[in-house]
Amino acid sequence: MLLKVKDVAEVLEIIEQHFWNLPGYAERISLMDSLGRRCAEDIRAPGNIPDFDKSVVDGYAVKARDTFGASDAMPALLEKIGEVAIGSSTDIQIDHDKCAYVPTGGMLPPGSDAVIMIEDTEDLDNKIIAIYKPAGPWDNTIKSGEDIAAGQVVLEKETLIRPPHIGALASIGLNDLKVYRRPRVSIISTGDELVKPGSQLSPGKIWDINSYSLAASVTRDGGIAELKGITGDDRPAIKAKVADALDDSDLVLISGGSSAGFSDYTAGIINELGKPGVLVHGISIKPGKPTIIGSVEGKPVIGMPGQPVSSLVVYRVVVSPLVRRMSRQPDSRQTLLKAVCDESYYSSPGREEYLMVTVYQGCDNRSHARPVPGKSGMITTISSANGMVVIPKNKEGLYKNEEVQVIML
Amino acid sequence: MLLKVKDVAEVLEIIEQHFWNLPGYAERISLMDSLGRRCAEDIRAPGNIPDFDKSVVDGYAVKARDTFGASDAMPALLEKIGEVAIGSSTDIQIDHDKCAYVPTGGMLPPGSDAVIMIEDTEDLDNKIIAIYKPAGPWDNTIKSGEDIAAGQVVLEKETLIRPPHIGALASIGLNDLKVYRRPRVSIISTGDELVKPGSQLSPGKIWDINSYSLAASVTRDGGIAELKGITGDDRPAIKAKVADALDDSDLVLISGGSSAGFSDYTAGIINELGKPGVLVHGISIKPGKPTIIGSVEGKPVIGMPGQPVSSLVVYRVVVSPLVRRMSRQPDSRQTLLKAVCDESYYSSPGREEYLMVTVYQGCDNRSHARPVPGKSGMITTISSANGMVVIPKNKEGLYKNEEVQVIML
Repeated sequence: MLLKVKDVAEVLEIIEQHFWNLPGYAERISLMDSLGRRCAEDIRAPGNIPDFDKSVVDGYAVKARDTFGASDAMPALLEKIGEVAIGSSTDIQIDHDKCAYVPTGGMLPPGSDAVIMIEDTEDLDNKIIAIYKPAGPWDNTIKSGEDIAAGQVVLEKETLIRPPHIGALASIGLNDLKVYRRPRVSIISTGDELVKPGSQLSPGKIWDINSYSLAASVTRDGGIAELKGITGDDRPAIKAKVADALDDSDLVLISGGSSAGFSDYTAGIINELGKPGVLVHGISIKPGKPTIIGSVEGKPVIGMPGQPVSSLVVYRVVVSPLVRRMSRQPDSRQTLLKAVCDESYYSSPGREEYLMVTVYQGCDNRSHARPVPGKSGMITTISSANGMVVIPKNKEGLYKNEEVQVIML
Repeated sequence: MLLKVKDVAEVLEIIEQHFWNLPGYAERISLMDSLGRRCAEDIRAPGNIPDFDKSVVDGYAVKARDTFGASDAMPALLEKIGEVAIGSSTDIQIDHDKCAYVPTGGMLPPGSDAVIMIEDTEDLDNKIIAIYKPAGPWDNTIKSGEDIAAGQVVLEKETLIRPPHIGALASIGLNDLKVYRRPRVSIISTGDELVKPGSQLSPGKIWDINSYSLAASVTRDGGIAELKGITGDDRPAIKAKVADALDDSDLVLISGGSSAGFSDYTAGIINELGKPGVLVHGISIKPGKPTIIGSVEGKPVIGMPGQPVSSLVVYRVVVSPLVRRMSRQPDSRQTLLKAVCDESYYSSPGREEYLMVTVYQGCDNRSHARPVPGKSGMITTISSANGMVVIPKNKEGLYKNEEVQVIML
């Protein structure tokens, strides 16, 4: 079956249509591990916070009405009948004209309804306290449940958890919580020429690059990358590996070898493994055309081009939005950087082209994008690039000093 | 010893002066774990990449001069004497008027010096190949070492490792590498009122918040947070814990309880444990004044305010730059967001003030900052804030619709 090569916009639409609303599975993890994850439930306070009336200053707990009219010239004189210890309950009873010392965070003693700051008082003889400023009812206090009432939602479902949220969750005594689990992304590398980094090369072989750069990209996007190793150019072996990977992953990436027949393998295998099968066969971008996107019973399987730069471009443009969607990370498609292009560049119209660039801060205080030199397929191209410039398909290139939009890598 | 309260700028200068050039310890980790870490050595290619002359297209390997003058009307006719398999060595010898099929990435057979793309050829009878386009020497090839020469630096020391770098390191067969290790940051929580989240509260107690929000902040900044638990208001116990933490960490944070005497404890303990001792005693910010910064024989020890909002502010303004420096992460001090302030706000001049705000995208497509309501010390303040606005110390507040600079949390 020959499918029409599609634009990036069409491809992203197909991906949204088929995979945007996959169910999000939740898992319970410890509070300390929840940074950067997305909350999978409304989290409610089990009780009032604070669960007692407390002072927010160091001072004297009083009946507010006993201080009305107090001034420097005419202080209210109250009898000190005790001290509240921080972190303890208190049974000191504050009656008319009595007071008790209470530290910041300490419990208000029964009968008191305000706290006078220590700076506005004077201890005359460790028995009588002079109060130089009046307090209104509940001044310098937080009442039980005033911060968070029992049952109140402290963190809404779908919140991306940042450090202050961790503090808020600790404040209600939470130890673990339900978050969406990270999607498992299997990466299958294919090609007779590939060897795992760290092992010896024999003549004609090269080390596998794409498994590792894809795994790193998946990790950065919040997924869990699982390297399924290298398979030679062996259709049944690849098919078995894909079937296996589908069992225990949410997304399967098949990184193509350089062999000519490879893309037919992938399409055929996807179609054989389940419905609806291949959705996209070829994307109208340069580099990255030989990309295949399929759905096996609703699970995405993507055949990635084997050339390392193509692999990087296709991942960033098409796969990254899907992984970030699945891992509930913020969509990064819209975060483009404006930069001045340092060199003119000629491209042939008809395909959207992605040009590898090095972005740097110029002396003019603007961001500049310098195209990375080098033949197609060279590794040095990707290691010195930190971004890519999109050249729309009806444009014939870039002018020197033109303002361009850069996708950061 | 009473030290003068210092401005944020002075404090940051003191931190730079004392801790900016602490040695960076390296550790060897696997390639797969190195994402986001900073390389601690120049990494050189152990051999040429590729380590053989290769084709970058599917086509026929030829002697370039045999194709000179070839055209559609007058093809060069070459004898096909074999096929190169991908990932294998080849001993096919290309002599005058011979050619061999070679796939993309395949090894050039000895004697050949160019490849004609398959699209520009015709297989006449599986023996004679018609070549319709000429090739110059080394057209459609990458020569051994042309991408990366043996000994060439592939990744410079101090590079922050992103996914493309992982690919480049895989391409030279690297399996592990030396990166700077993450700083270990111990967090000691103090206060008689504190209880670990997940356990039961008794009257007058609250759950420990700061340990958890500080740990999350440290993690986000690239450090390894180690919670050393809660210690009551017990000077010898706190001192023993700090001494212990200094043994196995690069930075010690002591989160203060609310008790009045606490800040004196911390300063005294720091001075007793080593030279030069306390460097900063009080910062001229609101909230966050009761902060202590010390150096125990060159190791930073910081006494953090116990109030959760103060803790967050002091961490973000003073501690985060240090943790990011130690973990070799990019400095985040300069990344401010411009936003429109939604409400006017009055502050008293004399101290730099940090106002918790919620930043959101307005209908006018601009970022807006809405001050978070709530009394000082309320948890709800921090859980609904995602940024803070700096009000300089000689300013009396913010005007509604004024453009402000927001530090994102």
